[in-house]
Amino acid sequence: MSQWIWKFGEYEIYHNLLCHSRRQHYGYTRPPMWKLYTPDPVVRFRKTAVTGGGSVRVKACGDLFVTLQAGENPAETLELNGKREFQIPPGPVVLTLLLNNFRTFPCVYVDGAIESDETWLADDNTSDWNPVGTDPAFQDPEQTPEKFPFSYMPISYVKKEVLENGALFDFGKETYVEAWICGISGDKERVSVRFGESREEALDPVWAVIQFHDRPEAGELRYSPCAFRYVFVEDAEAEVRARYEYLPLERRGSFTDEKEILNRIWETAAYTFHLNCREFILDGIKRDGWVWAADAYQSFFVNRYLFFDQALERRTLIALAGKKPMKQHINTIMDYSFFWLISLWDYYETYGDRKFPEQIFPQAEEIMRFCLDRTDADGFMRYKKGDWIFIDWAPMDKTGALCGEQILYTRALSSFSRICGILGKDDGGCGKRAEALQHAIQEKFYDSEKRVFIDSYESGKRNVTRHSNILAYLYLPCTEQQKKDIYERVIRNDRIRQITTPYFKFYENQVHCLAGNIRGMEEGLEVYYGGMLDHGATTFYEEFDPNMSGKEHYGMYGHPFEKSLCHAWSASPIYLLGRYVLGVRNTGIAYDSFEVEPYLDGKENFSGSVPVPGGNIHVSVDAGKIEVFSPVPGGVLIVGERRIPIEAGKKLCVTGFFES
Amino acid sequence: MSQWIWKFGEYEIYHNLLCHSRRQHYGYTRPPMWKLYTPDPVVRFRKTAVTGGGSVRVKACGDLFVTLQAGENPAETLELNGKREFQIPPGPVVLTLLLNNFRTFPCVYVDGAIESDETWLADDNTSDWNPVGTDPAFQDPEQTPEKFPFSYMPISYVKKEVLENGALFDFGKETYVEAWICGISGDKERVSVRFGESREEALDPVWAVIQFHDRPEAGELRYSPCAFRYVFVEDAEAEVRARYEYLPLERRGSFTDEKEILNRIWETAAYTFHLNCREFILDGIKRDGWVWAADAYQSFFVNRYLFFDQALERRTLIALAGKKPMKQHINTIMDYSFFWLISLWDYYETYGDRKFPEQIFPQAEEIMRFCLDRTDADGFMRYKKGDWIFIDWAPMDKTGALCGEQILYTRALSSFSRICGILGKDDGGCGKRAEALQHAIQEKFYDSEKRVFIDSYESGKRNVTRHSNILAYLYLPCTEQQKKDIYERVIRNDRIRQITTPYFKFYENQVHCLAGNIRGMEEGLEVYYGGMLDHGATTFYEEFDPNMSGKEHYGMYGHPFEKSLCHAWSASPIYLLGRYVLGVRNTGIAYDSFEVEPYLDGKENFSGSVPVPGGNIHVSVDAGKIEVFSPVPGGVLIVGERRIPIEAGKKLCVTGFFES
Repeated sequence: MSQWIWKFGEYEIYHNLLCHSRRQHYGYTRPPMWKLYTPDPVVRFRKTAVTGGGSVRVKACGDLFVTLQAGENPAETLELNGKREFQIPPGPVVLTLLLNNFRTFPCVYVDGAIESDETWLADDNTSDWNPVGTDPAFQDPEQTPEKFPFSYMPISYVKKEVLENGALFDFGKETYVEAWICGISGDKERVSVRFGESREEALDPVWAVIQFHDRPEAGELRYSPCAFRYVFVEDAEAEVRARYEYLPLERRGSFTDEKEILNRIWETAAYTFHLNCREFILDGIKRDGWVWAADAYQSFFVNRYLFFDQALERRTLIALAGKKPMKQHINTIMDYSFFWLISLWDYYETYGDRKFPEQIFPQAEEIMRFCLDRTDADGFMRYKKGDWIFIDWAPMDKTGALCGEQILYTRALSSFSRICGILGKDDGGCGKRAEALQHAIQEKFYDSEKRVFIDSYESGKRNVTRHSNILAYLYLPCTEQQKKDIYERVIRNDRIRQITTPYFKFYENQVHCLAGNIRGMEEGLEVYYGGMLDHGATTFYEEFDPNMSGKEHYGMYGHPFEKSLCHAWSASPIYLLGRYVLGVRNTGIAYDSFEVEPYLDGKENFSGSVPVPGGNIHVSVDAGKIEVFSPVPGGVLIVGERRIPIEAGKKLCVTGFFES
Repeated sequence: MSQWIWKFGEYEIYHNLLCHSRRQHYGYTRPPMWKLYTPDPVVRFRKTAVTGGGSVRVKACGDLFVTLQAGENPAETLELNGKREFQIPPGPVVLTLLLNNFRTFPCVYVDGAIESDETWLADDNTSDWNPVGTDPAFQDPEQTPEKFPFSYMPISYVKKEVLENGALFDFGKETYVEAWICGISGDKERVSVRFGESREEALDPVWAVIQFHDRPEAGELRYSPCAFRYVFVEDAEAEVRARYEYLPLERRGSFTDEKEILNRIWETAAYTFHLNCREFILDGIKRDGWVWAADAYQSFFVNRYLFFDQALERRTLIALAGKKPMKQHINTIMDYSFFWLISLWDYYETYGDRKFPEQIFPQAEEIMRFCLDRTDADGFMRYKKGDWIFIDWAPMDKTGALCGEQILYTRALSSFSRICGILGKDDGGCGKRAEALQHAIQEKFYDSEKRVFIDSYESGKRNVTRHSNILAYLYLPCTEQQKKDIYERVIRNDRIRQITTPYFKFYENQVHCLAGNIRGMEEGLEVYYGGMLDHGATTFYEEFDPNMSGKEHYGMYGHPFEKSLCHAWSASPIYLLGRYVLGVRNTGIAYDSFEVEPYLDGKENFSGSVPVPGGNIHVSVDAGKIEVFSPVPGGVLIVGERRIPIEAGKKLCVTGFFES
């Protein structure tokens, strides 16, 4: 089956350019704060094949030059110029298509006696041949990869409110919509149109983040798809027609609980997350609408318990990775380069797909090289010009080497080393470096008097934050005693400043669960996410402070509506409930071994499913009865001390476990 | 005075993309055979200044985000979003303009209290700040650098010939013209339009290289500027209106000789060269219309004796240099990377402009690094995958290290080392490598029995070509005896296969002149270029074989009209006559010292001028009287054994030199 092909990565690099060129900011399009990359304008595609001969048809985005070697002798190569249809003789051929297209990116579709598919090679005209990029979404010769294949569905607003100076349309919930405003009355010079995630935002002529002031044509205005619930049009007569633009993803994960609030949280998180899954996984659909590596890292956890969509993860990783030469940390942030490397290993571990790490390996190596080049002689990585040392917005002692960065760095090094392992490549000593760095962290950052980790050993302040200790708990090989100490002395210690961002709450919640306090995690969700639902949220916000009220919730960065009300990182309940309540976890590669350990201490009734390669694992717990079904082998059900093998394709029922 | 600014190099990278995306090839647009690069889509521009305050206006190609730090404290930075007009307070400010534009390239024009000029810095959003690129041609805020500033002049054909199936228009000479075809009769579905450098080409429906077959709109067709003398339109009623598109360059060099044929050669060479001087110096205006480093290298010699246009050389060098990472030799050819490095030093030596080598230094270093990475342990550079080992089309023994490549490599190494010297940078040992390589070449390639250089020492064939010996003569520190041997045993030895390309004839002609045989060079010009003029050439061809006749002259690469009839490398008489007949040569940096040694052995009457920084040097020789005028100091007139200082601004007359 023919499909469109392109030089690996260029489809994503191109759509990443478009994606980062549409952020609206108070009437202007706001450029991104990091380097963007462009596709190679000149690409060669090559196929070596033995065929029965016949007609070949080429569709190409760009100027084309065809050369055909018939037979084994490269000297016998015909130049077919820009011909889109030609004959090939039976027997061996080498078909080379040279394309130039700097307006979008070079891509090609070939059918007939030779078909374009993943077996082709491409280069940038430098003889650096590599397997092409493909996507099963592009099998139609008329639909080029220049346009991202979103799905569309007409939707209507649920309420029109006529106001003094115009009309306000409420779509009932947050959405992502192409709006077509028609019926604008009279010969207006310009009409204000304001999109709002909240009613207040749409009505604010100054602080609505997405706003336009355009001249109607024949009483109409048309806007590229954007994020909103409300739209205000400065014309009471106007009507709005709308098309929902979305990625058609199948929800494979599910969760139903005896507590209705958890069901509502799960459902809202799933919708929030789906809206943010587009060309790539975004941070938020209104703001920034950009691709950030740490947001993506957390989103991958959610994706794996909801859509299990590999292609979305690959596209996101390619977009984040950029191109050579790497001159800056991903998103300018040190931790984010590390998260990228960690995510690549996690991707392989989840899906068992060796091809993607292999294709992206040159850029993975570039990212690793960039990090190694910026590493000090003692193995720690410290601030260099242009770096953002982030971890979280919370106050932290960032003097010299920061504990959290070094912890993520060891994880990045070992992830890269593992990737090299599965690809049969030399890891350049990264595995050993990871181990040495773990020892150095224990030596320098573990405070044996406080019995927890400190942010900085160089300042002398020996400051303790949740952040350093949460990261140590999750990513360092800590002793059981160290873990207990961290949980008691930091996580359950109210004198240690609380985590305030849902971003870092995700890590802390994992610690609660790993420490056995799943009830604590659930209660946290009920307060935090339940609070948002009480406030009327239809999607989960970037941040939520239960102490605020009314439109206070919408403000951020000193502006009244700058908060994102639909943020991917707030979808973490999907992961937390699937991983710790249903209790399904991959313990091998691509679930070739896995455990199911439902949360049985605090509730009687819940069920759900978790996607794995080849199907979904179903788990239900109902008043003393556990049922587990897996379509794949390798599973073990854990109930207390008991480990019960799960036979593939057969429902396993366990009862009476409370007595065991 | 405000001017448009851009990230250094991006203006050229962008126009190089356009330039390499317009080659016409039998009805198709033919992609280039090497890698192309794209401008960075996201760029920051920054100016730190102390001003009296006031209004600032910004014109930007791209989405804009303005930040303004007023005062010394970076924490007090205002975000002005996409505002194109704003106030700045008196005192110190740091103004930063972030732009995103992947459609063309980010560039900006600022006037008011702060003006955009060469003192601004730019980066690619990675804090890698460098001085911006500018061009004095862009001082008009309405004229952006997205369009190359050609000049235009209406011109008319000189003859319309009505033929059976259409009309043929003759413009009288080769030109580069935007053609607007009007008055096409009837409702034709499609009309053939064929441009030809020769009458025969324009009339050939298959083999006219630039041909179109388009649907007229309202009886009209319009074509982007292209190269031709004749245009055929498949409609006898049609008319052609035309605009000559050209770079407005001032001819500063001149030459007049007692032999009219030399004057015609000089004039035709100057016109040929001017047509090829566009955004960059092209190889030929019809074919390829591309930028090749060796063609450019020779063209720089011509430019320096005709236009002395520094900006044209800079643009050409930037376009050729590409961007990091360098993955392939320039134009895929090993020698061409060397010519680039040699040209950069020659540029500095000619113009004394330190700023340009400084700005392009990171890429010069990348080109040098690329070469060093491909160098074998013995210091020689041999073929690696993807390389084209060229030197010339002639047969040569290319086994292992090729002599000519190593000679150019030493010159490239020493050129890079000298560039480092003037910039105060470490040359990474390149100067020493150059010396070691010279010794190695003398040791391995100099045949002490034959007393000349051989192509390859590894094959055992000990083959002798003109090429290796010409390059040794010009670029190695040979002994006087070696030079004499080369001249007698190779150049004047008819058993050694002749040079056939005007490309290499240029080097051979220099050897004739340096060996004192200027008369031989002149005679060569008369036969070769005179032959073209006799054949009716209005510009000089890519190649010319006096043994051919009629339309045979137009064929190349197996196709009847594929030869370029207007080729830059055929303009070398400009250089040869200025350098060796007028005898003006720079012996220092930017003519701070120079020699004038007119050719007095063979003729009585000639005159001309040679451009230097600050004016033109005039030389005339008339029946025993030499007159030299220089606007700048540092010159010496050489007459036989006499060296007579030339006083700046004062005409120097010498008579009776034949008696001396």
